[in-house]
Amino acid sequence: MRLILVAGATDTAKIDGISAAGADSDLLAHTPSADLELVEYGSLVRAPELPVSPTGCPTPAAVTRAVRERLDLDFLAVDAGLSVPTGAPTVSVGAKRGRDIRETDPVPTAPGSFLAARQLGQKLPDDELVVGETIPGGTTTALGTLRALGEEWAVSSSFPENPMALKQSVVADGLDASGIDVGEFAYEPLLAVRAMGDPVLAVVAGLVAGALDDDKDVILGGGTQMLTAAALVRHEGIAGPLTLATTSYLADDVPVLAEASNSLDVELAVTDPGFGQRDDALAQYAAGEGKEGAGMGGALLLADRAGELEHVGETTTKVVDAAGVTYGP
Amino acid sequence: MRLILVAGATDTAKIDGISAAGADSDLLAHTPSADLELVEYGSLVRAPELPVSPTGCPTPAAVTRAVRERLDLDFLAVDAGLSVPTGAPTVSVGAKRGRDIRETDPVPTAPGSFLAARQLGQKLPDDELVVGETIPGGTTTALGTLRALGEEWAVSSSFPENPMALKQSVVADGLDASGIDVGEFAYEPLLAVRAMGDPVLAVVAGLVAGALDDDKDVILGGGTQMLTAAALVRHEGIAGPLTLATTSYLADDVPVLAEASNSLDVELAVTDPGFGQRDDALAQYAAGEGKEGAGMGGALLLADRAGELEHVGETTTKVVDAAGVTYGP
Repeated sequence: MRLILVAGATDTAKIDGISAAGADSDLLAHTPSADLELVEYGSLVRAPELPVSPTGCPTPAAVTRAVRERLDLDFLAVDAGLSVPTGAPTVSVGAKRGRDIRETDPVPTAPGSFLAARQLGQKLPDDELVVGETIPGGTTTALGTLRALGEEWAVSSSFPENPMALKQSVVADGLDASGIDVGEFAYEPLLAVRAMGDPVLAVVAGLVAGALDDDKDVILGGGTQMLTAAALVRHEGIAGPLTLATTSYLADDVPVLAEASNSLDVELAVTDPGFGQRDDALAQYAAGEGKEGAGMGGALLLADRAGELEHVGETTTKVVDAAGVTYGP
Repeated sequence: MRLILVAGATDTAKIDGISAAGADSDLLAHTPSADLELVEYGSLVRAPELPVSPTGCPTPAAVTRAVRERLDLDFLAVDAGLSVPTGAPTVSVGAKRGRDIRETDPVPTAPGSFLAARQLGQKLPDDELVVGETIPGGTTTALGTLRALGEEWAVSSSFPENPMALKQSVVADGLDASGIDVGEFAYEPLLAVRAMGDPVLAVVAGLVAGALDDDKDVILGGGTQMLTAAALVRHEGIAGPLTLATTSYLADDVPVLAEASNSLDVELAVTDPGFGQRDDALAQYAAGEGKEGAGMGGALLLADRAGELEHVGETTTKVVDAAGVTYGP
């Protein structure tokens, strides 16, 4: 078992109002590098500040770190195009920071880094991987990628109020810039992620593809970005069991998540860490801030499996299998 | 407590007969990257083969990994100028592979990477660091660095027969190429390591300096290369307690080691893992192959402290303090 965080950047995050993954636009760029340090060390090494949303909601990486510490999880950070250096050790797969999807060819490193990540996913010595992401602006590039693939599912937001109209407008501009129609890159996932995605999606899809090649169990820890990575894997024609492990906060925000997972033959596991009952900053999650990210949903599923969730709050893990049957309380 | 391996390359290793840190000259280049994967994962991910000497002696990284696994040690790999990519996650401090010390300015990244490593050493959250190195050809660049500093101590070798005449000739050519005399860079360690050293020495010295700035305990796990790093730190004017933890095989090869450590105010700890009593490839260590490297002496000291050394063989840890007093059996 190894927990993996894939971290990178897209200039799409610089569009005003797109991302809450930082206290302001300057700090946003540091969030992935800081998240890696937090999960690796439990404290910052090079990053200037603990990542918080504009209203002070702490990064989900803090939750992932807490679970990692309690369960003594092996951890691997993958550099999928970081824009600032990190003090955490990372594996490079040749990815570079992505450009704004309203430009042409925003993710030119996608094909090479997909292949390098696929080899890494094959070769890692573990039987099971839990993969998460940290990239501000990632739900917008996920939306763009889904549309290029012809998938109609919605995406979530780190804001309490999802700026969907803005995201749809950015995606429409991106499709125009790339000169493609909705669905034009169905079954051509490397073209889809290169034209409308971000470097993290390409690397997550490669890692997952490689892990499935090697019959590893894979848990995607996250929300609609990780679901988009699953879509890329499925559009590449790769079968094999996948579980999307997310938080109740994310699942509540995206009612279509179970149906979307089902359509991609992905099992859905939803965990409620009960943060609404806390009197600290984590309570903001229950009010719709943050919701998910940095592998949080995957970490919570592992914590629940290990019987550790009573330490953070009452939990109700709900598992929905690919046929839509719900288990658990 | 964190185990750190600083890994890099110098083209000095390409000189025929200089290094036994690889089965042949092609595989030599892969040794540091492979060592990191071995200590990180317990198996190779990108590297082509397990590093062995020309006669099949396994890399000391295998011993370090065994100890890491048994003691569940946190591990950090630092890229100090790797020449081939590694599948292990690494922190970059801006170091690039070193050129042959018979060229002018073989380590131009030394000043910047020393500073970046020093910051890292300050900021790491641990109370104690065990630092090791993996760089083929590193004893020759250590000898060159010692001479530039005006230190007269000998260096060891991964060969059973130390090619000292060859090393001295390479160092003499290097001093000529840089236009400097023996001792010319005493108390100017950054000039010494830049002119006659390798990128790993610069980064180890920086890490150790930073750790001492922050009052961390530091164990240097290795032989004469790590002693050279200590010399760089002392010539920078940095005091603070340092322990050199090495193997009995290395200590037997360098009779002057206790005196040299003493002169640099470094405590010496020598551990004998009893490999001479084994009937596998590790017995070659007792015949003078390999001897030390990849933090092996430091890992063995930790194993001994934890009472775990009976698992690998009878041990006699001998501690020599800076005043030359010997403790233990």
